[in-house]
Amino acid sequence: MAETPVQIESKITRILIVGTGLIGASTGLALKAAGFKGHISGWDATRVERLTALEMGAVDEVASSREEALSVARHAHVIVLAIPVMGILDWLLELAPVLRSGQLVTDVGSTKLQIAELGQGLFGGGGARFLPGHPMAGKESGGAALAEAGLFRGAMWLFTPFAEEMDELAVEWRSWVAKFGARTLDLDAARHDELCAWVSHLPQMLSTALAALLEDRFGDAPEIAAIGGRALRETTRLGASPYSMWRDVAMSNTDPIAETLFALEQRLAHVRENLKTPALRDEFALANRFRARR
Amino acid sequence: MAETPVQIESKITRILIVGTGLIGASTGLALKAAGFKGHISGWDATRVERLTALEMGAVDEVASSREEALSVARHAHVIVLAIPVMGILDWLLELAPVLRSGQLVTDVGSTKLQIAELGQGLFGGGGARFLPGHPMAGKESGGAALAEAGLFRGAMWLFTPFAEEMDELAVEWRSWVAKFGARTLDLDAARHDELCAWVSHLPQMLSTALAALLEDRFGDAPEIAAIGGRALRETTRLGASPYSMWRDVAMSNTDPIAETLFALEQRLAHVRENLKTPALRDEFALANRFRARR
Repeated sequence: MAETPVQIESKITRILIVGTGLIGASTGLALKAAGFKGHISGWDATRVERLTALEMGAVDEVASSREEALSVARHAHVIVLAIPVMGILDWLLELAPVLRSGQLVTDVGSTKLQIAELGQGLFGGGGARFLPGHPMAGKESGGAALAEAGLFRGAMWLFTPFAEEMDELAVEWRSWVAKFGARTLDLDAARHDELCAWVSHLPQMLSTALAALLEDRFGDAPEIAAIGGRALRETTRLGASPYSMWRDVAMSNTDPIAETLFALEQRLAHVRENLKTPALRDEFALANRFRARR
Repeated sequence: MAETPVQIESKITRILIVGTGLIGASTGLALKAAGFKGHISGWDATRVERLTALEMGAVDEVASSREEALSVARHAHVIVLAIPVMGILDWLLELAPVLRSGQLVTDVGSTKLQIAELGQGLFGGGGARFLPGHPMAGKESGGAALAEAGLFRGAMWLFTPFAEEMDELAVEWRSWVAKFGARTLDLDAARHDELCAWVSHLPQMLSTALAALLEDRFGDAPEIAAIGGRALRETTRLGASPYSMWRDVAMSNTDPIAETLFALEQRLAHVRENLKTPALRDEFALANRFRARR
């Protein structure tokens, strides 16, 4: 094939993906599908995850220990932390002393305030840079086996940068994200966590609570399976989400999530107390208006 | 075309559908798609609904007034009441004095205890029969224009008969419902209302409350639209449902719905108080188990 005459030079030629589960492996596949020609290393604490990612071509090689991954990190242009929030905090602490100028750390953690605050302290001076990120994509189950190059197409990839100036590597990383087909938006980290509590964490906790309540109440009663339709299926679908991922979200965004849950409890009580009054009509009218915009 | 040698004789040749909205018009279309060769009359208090149903061939003719519909009912083998619950109660009271043996009334109301109790008093003696029914099918919006012959395919069509013996017309009506592709299940009316409160009314009230809460809190803030993904979309989808239909459900099934809402409020408080404790893991485990069965 003929080379196109104008080539934008890629500064990023070596990437390390820490955590080759659903999001990490999909990031590797998306990079390759978007034309990334550099080298992608991977590391996952779970052996089957890193071998699956390798097998499916999401990464070109895998480290065989955390120590090896850390030494690969010293030579990567971009290190993508694609693990739960608490693990990201650990990695930031480990990476900060060994990285240098000309390197960029980014992450995909679901909550951003703790990560951004720690990251600013560690990477806010000179040397290596840090760009906190959050692709709003996923599936009910995780794991490399479900990874797809198209996972981020049409999804929102949020960033919560703490520096005004745009680092060259960060600019290029953003351009790769755009090539994945994702939309991007920059937010303040605290605002990110508050908004995500409403649009993501509350729906999750709600769905988990509803499914758990029904499980407690009905167990495997055949009638529930027989008569439950789309309404039940949709409102409990997220109940299949794994605790392993949500534990860290609940831990790192406790107050905003608690606020949304409390507000919903009060709202449900309001509906309950007004099942026979015109206030129920007002509630439906508000809900109709919310949906009409979407 | 050659006749098949054995023909099951159809007793039902004249049907009146009262309420030619989504469910009523879909019932007419489903009857025709299933090979019903008799005559279908329709009535709807809203002129555009009855004319739309006529135009799309869901009914063969429409009455032009409630009085005319009532006189058509005198000569119908089956009268299908496809209107909200309170309207069904009104029609049962009007039909009882004018119908006779050899006629069957059935309905599609979302709650069954009030309807079955009134119907038993009115039709439980001799004369015309009544078979309470409830197809669990629908869309976020109603209206004849959205009607489809296939609306009931794979859906559950519940019955809450109060008589043990199977009337001949009721047997034939059930066979038409089976031909629509619906599954059927007989339930006690009170149990029906309790189960539907859990699998249908609670998801609805929940979705309405969540959408109303977000509307109150964020109005048309662009960020919510930008970052809300599938989780938000699915848990608020039912928020588009019209009050006009749910008012009667809330009115006629108040206590069971209130019980489910109260239980969910307590469950959400439990989650809120345990965002940082191992009880959250138990909640996810229960929810996972509920979903694994479905």
